[in-house]
Amino acid sequence: MDSVGDHQGGAVAAPRSFAIVGVGALGGFYGARLQRAGHEVHYLLRSDYDHVREKGLVVESVDGDFSLPRVHAHCSADTVPPVEVVVVALKATANAVLAEVLPRLVRPGTTVLLMQNGLGVEEEIARISPEADVVGGLCFLCSNRVGPGHIQHLDYGAVTLGQYRPGDAAAGVTPAVVALSEDFAPTGIEVVLDPDLHAARWRKLVWNIPFNGLSVVLDAGTDELIADGATRSLLVALMQEVREGAASCDRTIEDSFLDRMISDTEAMVPYRTSMKLDYDLGRPLELEAIYGNPLCAARQRGSDLRRIDTLYRQLRFLDERNRQ
Amino acid sequence: MDSVGDHQGGAVAAPRSFAIVGVGALGGFYGARLQRAGHEVHYLLRSDYDHVREKGLVVESVDGDFSLPRVHAHCSADTVPPVEVVVVALKATANAVLAEVLPRLVRPGTTVLLMQNGLGVEEEIARISPEADVVGGLCFLCSNRVGPGHIQHLDYGAVTLGQYRPGDAAAGVTPAVVALSEDFAPTGIEVVLDPDLHAARWRKLVWNIPFNGLSVVLDAGTDELIADGATRSLLVALMQEVREGAASCDRTIEDSFLDRMISDTEAMVPYRTSMKLDYDLGRPLELEAIYGNPLCAARQRGSDLRRIDTLYRQLRFLDERNRQ
Repeated sequence: MDSVGDHQGGAVAAPRSFAIVGVGALGGFYGARLQRAGHEVHYLLRSDYDHVREKGLVVESVDGDFSLPRVHAHCSADTVPPVEVVVVALKATANAVLAEVLPRLVRPGTTVLLMQNGLGVEEEIARISPEADVVGGLCFLCSNRVGPGHIQHLDYGAVTLGQYRPGDAAAGVTPAVVALSEDFAPTGIEVVLDPDLHAARWRKLVWNIPFNGLSVVLDAGTDELIADGATRSLLVALMQEVREGAASCDRTIEDSFLDRMISDTEAMVPYRTSMKLDYDLGRPLELEAIYGNPLCAARQRGSDLRRIDTLYRQLRFLDERNRQ
Repeated sequence: MDSVGDHQGGAVAAPRSFAIVGVGALGGFYGARLQRAGHEVHYLLRSDYDHVREKGLVVESVDGDFSLPRVHAHCSADTVPPVEVVVVALKATANAVLAEVLPRLVRPGTTVLLMQNGLGVEEEIARISPEADVVGGLCFLCSNRVGPGHIQHLDYGAVTLGQYRPGDAAAGVTPAVVALSEDFAPTGIEVVLDPDLHAARWRKLVWNIPFNGLSVVLDAGTDELIADGATRSLLVALMQEVREGAASCDRTIEDSFLDRMISDTEAMVPYRTSMKLDYDLGRPLELEAIYGNPLCAARQRGSDLRRIDTLYRQLRFLDERNRQ
């Protein structure tokens, strides 16, 4: 990936203003790091509002613990002042609130940074707020919300940023993306700029589709799935179908990338995937963004991803039963 | 299926001699019915030998309870006298013993009736005992072994019989098959003769592959799988892949047959599949006969059954873990 540069250590830019929608394991972590780096950060909260308004945020992190006793907490989008960047860090299953919240936060030229997995959500945001400059953020982060305003950051943290364009065309590295990378520079968080957001999203699915789904369906850790011969070959076969889906959208994923996803995961400590964590906690699963939308995108282009579709339907059954 | 006749009420033939290999829910039931109808039946047992030798067999049945206090019980094939028919009613996972047992029971012209699900096992028997006349039996039976020599027959019981030919060619209705149907006539068990065993085996897989597998992977009853929209469509998609596999072996399964499998199951009482029962009891699953062999047969003919293969690999993982 020649054209993908590691963008760190650039010139220090002026602080900007952010609104974080969804202050959980992800939004809480990145929001707190942006605030600590000097940006003005507004947090839009629901159930944790009272706690965070009074006590602020606590981040226990492999990169060093810190707390922010005073934060700008809001329980309504109406009290958030105009900001330059809106960060959507909700679970995809909570995206229904965006139709209510985004119109109150977005003005012409506002950057909306969507920090979610899966495919097709930028499109939704562009439909709700056509005046926004939409950027996708892919987070490689291992963190948990262990209590209100209390984030435990276990590992990783890098973010890949890419500009969204209607029709998922590759946009190159745009001013909005560069500006965000400059915002992140003083946070110490690694940022990678990808000129082709849609390709980056498909690549991330190479891991998310097999590991998230099988961990739920088979009640298994990443280590067990890799150690067993049958599931290891199934992981690879599912990854190959993700590659087929990407190819149907004119994105090429190399063989070596698939191999690396397996070997990187093998080297990780045994890991409960985020979908498995959601499932075990009885939360709804992010099935449409991670499975339904990619399947639909591929099907529209004549590609029938049968293994992924099988897993998707199994997950829908389990998700439905799990929430009863 | 014009050529498939319901074969009942034929002329009463002379009693014959049988050896039943595997005296569980299936072998115990059919063996007892054959014995009660006047045939000479020898039972080859392992763990239940002492009990059955002393107490015989008890069948609690929807068709009427009965017991056979005196039976010919054997703990070794060496004490079984020459018989005309050897009935293999083991679980497919126990087929390793056939290499030891069959050569002691089979002489030129002996009929071996294989009462198992799945594909490819007749071939194995023909390899072990090339002098045997191999007939496949497909049992539509709902029964359990509730104790040593104690069978509970809950529903159904019909048997489809078809002659095996090397290369799985359709053999027509052969003398061996007709003779067996005459043996069954006085038992009251419904017998259907199929001129094409291989086609019958694929048709049976239309039910077995989706329902058995999904019931284990999703820990679900047949009723739940049909009621949920996601799994109902997955059941149908899996059935369509079974049909693709059959087509690759030059066997046509009609759409209406798939529809009927769904509606028939819908009309059944909620049912724990035999594979789910095995799984819950920690027994090994019949994965090769029901999944591995059909997948292999299709693959050799260029047909890639990805949904079934996905289910198969999931089941292998679960089976392996379940037996640890």
